[in-house]
Amino acid sequence: MWRELVPVGRHQESGGYRRYAWTGADAECRAWFKEQAEARGLSYELDRNGNQWAWLGDPAAGDAVVTGSHLDSVPDGGAFDGPLGVVSSFAALDELRARQVTFSKPLAIVNFGDEEGARFGLACVGSRLTAGQLSAEQAHRLTDGEGVSLPKAMEAAGYDPEGIGADPERLARIGAFVELHVEQGRALDLSGDRVGIASAIWPHGRWRFDFRGEANHAGTTRLVDRRDPMLSYAETVLAARRAAELAGAVATFGKISVEPNGVNAVPSLVRGWLDSRAEDQATLDTVVGGIEKAAREYAEAHGVDLDVVRESFTPVVEFDHALRDEIARILGKDTDITVPVLGTGAGHDAGILSGSIPTAMLFVRNPTGVSHSPAEHAAEDDCVAGVTALADVLEGLARR
Amino acid sequence: MWRELVPVGRHQESGGYRRYAWTGADAECRAWFKEQAEARGLSYELDRNGNQWAWLGDPAAGDAVVTGSHLDSVPDGGAFDGPLGVVSSFAALDELRARQVTFSKPLAIVNFGDEEGARFGLACVGSRLTAGQLSAEQAHRLTDGEGVSLPKAMEAAGYDPEGIGADPERLARIGAFVELHVEQGRALDLSGDRVGIASAIWPHGRWRFDFRGEANHAGTTRLVDRRDPMLSYAETVLAARRAAELAGAVATFGKISVEPNGVNAVPSLVRGWLDSRAEDQATLDTVVGGIEKAAREYAEAHGVDLDVVRESFTPVVEFDHALRDEIARILGKDTDITVPVLGTGAGHDAGILSGSIPTAMLFVRNPTGVSHSPAEHAAEDDCVAGVTALADVLEGLARR
Repeated sequence: MWRELVPVGRHQESGGYRRYAWTGADAECRAWFKEQAEARGLSYELDRNGNQWAWLGDPAAGDAVVTGSHLDSVPDGGAFDGPLGVVSSFAALDELRARQVTFSKPLAIVNFGDEEGARFGLACVGSRLTAGQLSAEQAHRLTDGEGVSLPKAMEAAGYDPEGIGADPERLARIGAFVELHVEQGRALDLSGDRVGIASAIWPHGRWRFDFRGEANHAGTTRLVDRRDPMLSYAETVLAARRAAELAGAVATFGKISVEPNGVNAVPSLVRGWLDSRAEDQATLDTVVGGIEKAAREYAEAHGVDLDVVRESFTPVVEFDHALRDEIARILGKDTDITVPVLGTGAGHDAGILSGSIPTAMLFVRNPTGVSHSPAEHAAEDDCVAGVTALADVLEGLARR
Repeated sequence: MWRELVPVGRHQESGGYRRYAWTGADAECRAWFKEQAEARGLSYELDRNGNQWAWLGDPAAGDAVVTGSHLDSVPDGGAFDGPLGVVSSFAALDELRARQVTFSKPLAIVNFGDEEGARFGLACVGSRLTAGQLSAEQAHRLTDGEGVSLPKAMEAAGYDPEGIGADPERLARIGAFVELHVEQGRALDLSGDRVGIASAIWPHGRWRFDFRGEANHAGTTRLVDRRDPMLSYAETVLAARRAAELAGAVATFGKISVEPNGVNAVPSLVRGWLDSRAEDQATLDTVVGGIEKAAREYAEAHGVDLDVVRESFTPVVEFDHALRDEIARILGKDTDITVPVLGTGAGHDAGILSGSIPTAMLFVRNPTGVSHSPAEHAAEDDCVAGVTALADVLEGLARR
């Protein structure tokens, strides 16, 4: 099952994945999901927002137990972020059938569309639309780097974008959603555990810093006559690192766009994107506020104009305590092992849905903590432990 | 004449020019050149390297006086850098005909191809090929951002790339080359002169700094676990500015390329291009050596690998002293005005050719010194003064 997915959307040179929403690689992943569902006799369903569902039992019965994740990737992402959750869901179902478990509740596996936001710049589009956290109008305004709008991209991929929008009836049928995911840090590696349970997702956001100076000849313009936005950008990158270090938060400038981007031209515009996350809202406000203040001082010193735009923001997400405790009880039942509970700086569909339904997450150990990179990894033993844990949780929840 | 060129290759949004070698905008500029030549009864010629020539008199007679410049542009460049020299050449010829001057030597106007190097990354390709400073083999290896090679681009534009290479016979026929150019600094503005003569072109080069770290999740990777190349890049940008300031040189990071360039990913690669120039070789060596040393220290501190590649280099160019003095004499003859002689940090076709034939440059005042930007400007009066000066020089040289 895993082997079939490995080559899809893999970039030859980087070895990383480029599975962007509504592209050819995404279509191949979706075809794979449908085949897996049909091969297991599950009823396949595509919802109004392009999310894929595979049902065991009657969806209309209510109080369903749902698991799953996403199949798309960041640019040159790793093989595990997303796919591990979907593959483990099918594997857990196989395991439960082998155990001859009978369920009192319907069970479903889901593949949420466009979780990474690599193409349209907004993460978790499929779950946001479903949960009503992104309106159809807002979704219509999303465009990719080539100016293609989200509805046009869906249409080009053979999907009808007409009905996109909130889907409360669907959510009302779900009693619990559990997402398994490769850990994107080293907490489990440091504690020596294979599997962990999520406590909360840190608040996080993206801010665009537009430094506007004056394009000029790099050979003939005296340094004192320049208004070079690259200098203020560079100072801000370093200020962001210092502010995050001080606060125990994270801050990253990972994306940049420069105009005219010529070797022999002082830039007219340097646009840098800041991604920042912290344990709580107050800390995040302090970090980002500090970075912005420093950036304004640097810009002024260089005669550069600065606009700062908050492009997205997600408040802190506390996962459902009752569900979390029940999962800890299920996983701890037959052993002496205490499954660790940990916070995470990454956003997930589970975080979006937690505003609407009881939601939980399981993490599988990642030995290096590396993620969003071809070096992202989980050992086979740990993946198997993840599948067993997920099967235990689904059995515990759907038989109760 | 000027009016017809203004709209060609102008970008609607930026107001700047995007006249890149062997593109549609370049073809329009070339068609314009040919029309101007034919309208004046000059014999039009395209040389083996795609440079355009318009001859008055017999090219084979030898000791020709040649003027001209280029019509291509940097990304979002201004209207004057290049075209002012070509337009002024035709205007100067009109002026000389109005004066009823008869010439004892052949006279030519030239448009050198691909001076800015905006598309293939190497400046002065047309003149370098002609002067034998770029071999046909090297030229064949030049590719643009989309992987199109220079010969393929020439072919696509309807030119035969078969014969590109050194053209010593052509250069042997030229007695003097004079290029008029808008000044790309503020020396004439500060001295209060309309026109100046070039003394030398500063040595200059382009270096590519490849900072390689490790792609990682921007939300979940602890700062201490990161190998973030953006930090070393930012520190190097600031170090370059300091080194240039100390030495009275210039250093610019104006072009950058980041992988994967995602908002939520620590970059795996930040590639920055350094452009640096100084009055003499020793100073330039000190500046660039200092920047590279600092960059290596920063990279090491962040666990980042660094490769530095010198992509191009042009040693100091001293223009022909005899020709320069003769031009100063011609321009100073009827007035008390001393025409100032000034150095420049910009590369030019004239700089390339000065290794093969006696070469000189005239600069026209630029009130703000801004260049390689839509804000680049020269006042109409100053442009007229430039044409008159060029006509005087051509008359003085071709009648002698």
